[in-house]
Amino acid sequence: MLGLARANSAQKMCSSARARLHRVCERWPAVCHILQGPPLATSAPKVWSSGSSVESIQDRQKRLMARGLPKQKVIPGVKQVIVVASGKGGVGKSTTAVNLALGLAADNLVVGLLDADVYGPSIPRMMNLRGNPELTDSNLMRPLVNFGIVCMSMGFLVEEAAPIVWRGLMVMSAIEKLVRQVDWGHLDYLVIDLPPGTGDVQLSISQNVPISGAVIVSTPQDIALLDAQRAAEMFRKVNVPVLGIVQNMSVFQCPKCKYETHIFGADGAKVLATQLGLDVLGDIPLHLNIRETSDKGQPIVVSHPDSPEAKAYLKLTAEVVKRLPALHG
Amino acid sequence: MLGLARANSAQKMCSSARARLHRVCERWPAVCHILQGPPLATSAPKVWSSGSSVESIQDRQKRLMARGLPKQKVIPGVKQVIVVASGKGGVGKSTTAVNLALGLAADNLVVGLLDADVYGPSIPRMMNLRGNPELTDSNLMRPLVNFGIVCMSMGFLVEEAAPIVWRGLMVMSAIEKLVRQVDWGHLDYLVIDLPPGTGDVQLSISQNVPISGAVIVSTPQDIALLDAQRAAEMFRKVNVPVLGIVQNMSVFQCPKCKYETHIFGADGAKVLATQLGLDVLGDIPLHLNIRETSDKGQPIVVSHPDSPEAKAYLKLTAEVVKRLPALHG
Repeated sequence: MLGLARANSAQKMCSSARARLHRVCERWPAVCHILQGPPLATSAPKVWSSGSSVESIQDRQKRLMARGLPKQKVIPGVKQVIVVASGKGGVGKSTTAVNLALGLAADNLVVGLLDADVYGPSIPRMMNLRGNPELTDSNLMRPLVNFGIVCMSMGFLVEEAAPIVWRGLMVMSAIEKLVRQVDWGHLDYLVIDLPPGTGDVQLSISQNVPISGAVIVSTPQDIALLDAQRAAEMFRKVNVPVLGIVQNMSVFQCPKCKYETHIFGADGAKVLATQLGLDVLGDIPLHLNIRETSDKGQPIVVSHPDSPEAKAYLKLTAEVVKRLPALHG
Repeated sequence: MLGLARANSAQKMCSSARARLHRVCERWPAVCHILQGPPLATSAPKVWSSGSSVESIQDRQKRLMARGLPKQKVIPGVKQVIVVASGKGGVGKSTTAVNLALGLAADNLVVGLLDADVYGPSIPRMMNLRGNPELTDSNLMRPLVNFGIVCMSMGFLVEEAAPIVWRGLMVMSAIEKLVRQVDWGHLDYLVIDLPPGTGDVQLSISQNVPISGAVIVSTPQDIALLDAQRAAEMFRKVNVPVLGIVQNMSVFQCPKCKYETHIFGADGAKVLATQLGLDVLGDIPLHLNIRETSDKGQPIVVSHPDSPEAKAYLKLTAEVVKRLPALHG
């Protein structure tokens, strides 16, 4: 709460901060270029504006930029793609992705799950899957299947504890393969578990794949909310519809005395959602069961479908589906 | 525990998995090249081995590879660099980095703190710092200071909630500036808060800066431990000494009845440390105070120096210093 108020006042301070940054940039154009894009300019350069209006130059710039952008291509056989994202790691994004996929499957939908977290794949462990994918006759990788969900992850292609020490370009190439060189079959939904942050993988997937909606996961903690806000802004920049925010780990109930503690804060994600004009899709408590079932590869939606925790995920699933375009065919 | 046992059995399964991967690679050399490096070969190609032994070819390859690697350059004025890393996000890495830096400063050492998490900078909020750095006469950025620690972060150069939607190469360039184009003054230790994972930033910093030691933070949760193991392996690959593992959020004590719950597991990080032959540097409980003081920008080591939580961090600091080379000059 306090933090959000501070964030507001920080925004108000921006004009003076911008002025100072402007001074830095004037004296140091090289770093300014790296950090902020081209040097700050208060008006269009005169040499450009002669003969045509500033408006049309901007339009032209946009058109030229758009030409260089990668084209979005549908994944064959996949009706809709949902991405599960978070600004910060460790907020329960993969657990949410897994239980969302299982919630959709419980609704008799055909669902796939792609683990796009190349550096720290969690899906093999959470879905209790191990092994290397086989190849089809048309040289596509056959996804592994558990609980009725077809899954693909970098974790199926390297040893479990091996670090992927790769540069961004390598990661891009691998992601492209994990998306396109897989025999997904016919899916109603492909749920993509994105890595935390707003980097190469998020950009590539958003630019190359048509996404029906993004689900952003955050704990109510100020530091996590800041990152969630960054993630939401990123999706807006690349024109991916944000379905809403999932507030995770909002409350812990003592298993002995039932006293409730807001270890990571109480309603932060709800306040942020209101600020950004987004919906809250669900509110998942911090519960030992959720963590333990995830670690064991028996996600709570399949292993304890009647528990209040599983019901929270099923409610979340319904809220997500409600906000997606209707499925055709 | 269960998960670690499973990891072991997974390693035993590797030979059959490798054989299958080999078959995948034979039929699909392109993806094999991306995922695993050059196509698997059971022996050195014959055309190479004529006239010289396999051994000498490997040596030559190593020499040639080493030529292309960036050279490590000391940061002027900085005696030693400590990196704080984690495989997974959200395990308390930044909180540990901040309280470690403050613990060192409490020991009358001159300390700097570099936030290398370009996508999700948390240090400005945690150190209660805001604003843009000024420039010195020699065009270096002047770090911001609080609690006696000089700090640098991407968060000082962009608006607080603005997402950094950058490709890896841009990030590299920014990190280089945040390390080198800063007037650090004379520091005993520069603590670098690395982003989670094993990607571009971790690689660049490990290759460009001589690092005295890496501290790896993990929760006891199986999924986080896997990523911690990946981080440790990465540092070994790039010859950075790993000082040990910090077990974070190991136990939560109910504020009402004092009942202790191991929400994220109990001793996982300790077991992993034993497995990897590493030391456990500290064991930090999951405590509301730590989260709240971090969010408020009043880290627990300065705001509640006599609390058991602060003492856990001070003990951790002593364990870190014990394992570093002696400070000279």
